[in-house]
Amino acid sequence: MTSNIRLLIEYDGTNYVGWQVQANGLSVQQILEEKLWELLGEPVRLISSGRTDAGVHARGMVANFRTSRSLPMRAYREGLNRLLPVDIAVREAHIVHEDFHSRFDARGKWYRYTLYLSPVRSPLARRFSWHLRSELDTGRMRCAAGKFVGQHDFRAFRGAGCGARTTVREIYSVDLLEEPPFLHIDVKGEGFLRNMVRMMAGTLVAVAREKVSLAEFDRLLRGAHGGKAGPTAPAHGLCLMEVWYDERQSS
Amino acid sequence: MTSNIRLLIEYDGTNYVGWQVQANGLSVQQILEEKLWELLGEPVRLISSGRTDAGVHARGMVANFRTSRSLPMRAYREGLNRLLPVDIAVREAHIVHEDFHSRFDARGKWYRYTLYLSPVRSPLARRFSWHLRSELDTGRMRCAAGKFVGQHDFRAFRGAGCGARTTVREIYSVDLLEEPPFLHIDVKGEGFLRNMVRMMAGTLVAVAREKVSLAEFDRLLRGAHGGKAGPTAPAHGLCLMEVWYDERQSS
Repeated sequence: MTSNIRLLIEYDGTNYVGWQVQANGLSVQQILEEKLWELLGEPVRLISSGRTDAGVHARGMVANFRTSRSLPMRAYREGLNRLLPVDIAVREAHIVHEDFHSRFDARGKWYRYTLYLSPVRSPLARRFSWHLRSELDTGRMRCAAGKFVGQHDFRAFRGAGCGARTTVREIYSVDLLEEPPFLHIDVKGEGFLRNMVRMMAGTLVAVAREKVSLAEFDRLLRGAHGGKAGPTAPAHGLCLMEVWYDERQSS
Repeated sequence: MTSNIRLLIEYDGTNYVGWQVQANGLSVQQILEEKLWELLGEPVRLISSGRTDAGVHARGMVANFRTSRSLPMRAYREGLNRLLPVDIAVREAHIVHEDFHSRFDARGKWYRYTLYLSPVRSPLARRFSWHLRSELDTGRMRCAAGKFVGQHDFRAFRGAGCGARTTVREIYSVDLLEEPPFLHIDVKGEGFLRNMVRMMAGTLVAVAREKVSLAEFDRLLRGAHGGKAGPTAPAHGLCLMEVWYDERQSS
């Protein structure tokens, strides 16, 4: 008899090539799988809600795995966290329904992109925000942010190498939260293409600086003319905050 | 003719032996003096508002120096910041009265000690907070915190090697700011002994956990019985937020 275990994971992505196992460096998934093997004495395969790019952080990544071992959930929060490096931690562990699948069952995700607005860079904020020297026209930014909401063809907002078959995605909300000198861009949606949130953030900044007009923005959002959104905001400003599931699936 | 220049400095103290030049490793002061020398072409000596321990952070350290060069203030915010490592930055630079002295003229300081309260450690908060696994009785903590306010003999709250001649200090306020899972302890006072804020924070936690009774706390604060406060909370939870000066001195 096997158990299906769901983990809630936090990590500082600074020193990793991203979530997914890669040939060119250390990934968060690889570290977690190695430490789970050490803890369980058997190899396991983690299924995650999705990937994160190199350098992106997570407060609420979700991943599940099946195991024949029946350790108490405490063993994951305590034993596993002692094995993991300081920049990765398991916040919660639960036994879930045998059919639960972190990716297929995800109903939505919340990403936060953080800007640091100041003439001078910040040693204390540098790991978790994109430093912008000039002030932004947040009125223009809010106007464009509101246009993201709903179903759109996001083909202009996907990074090179994105393998998704369809480019239509639904965005539930895009909120700007001002906590000077920080400006958080909270994006909630059903699903995202590769680099999509970073391109959304970069494009909002370009709109705020009048480097992209609102008319151009509308054209990018219609996805009709082969235009490319951007720039792609740097990875270290992005954090995966939460992934949502139906109640039925999560217990 | 020499100018007296006042700098407002932010740093992530993780990788330094503290503010002051030490034989056993790299200090923030040393780095700043080296880069100022590079910028100005002449050696300068920084006078700071005080020291910070190894690993302690600062958002508002103040230091001044005299120079015969007359660079525009912009050169310190821009040129100097390009020379400095990513974990140190000059936020502001101003020409001040020739008599201004960062230490002697300081009228008070604000320190923030940050606790992270959660059963599980946090990869994202770890550099800037002290992780405590169990909940704290904040009622008891607030009661003790209020007792710090006023003039007291803090001899029980000074670390080994403290060279201060007198141990009486005035505390203006100690506020607990709850932002779950964070609890900030904001301490404002005229001046501080070595390790004093860290010992105050550690003692408040001991009171909250009933390891120190309120009666014992009162005895420590009277400084009469040779008792030692503590434990000394770890350095990485502490940040020097601001140093105050009389208006006359600061312009």
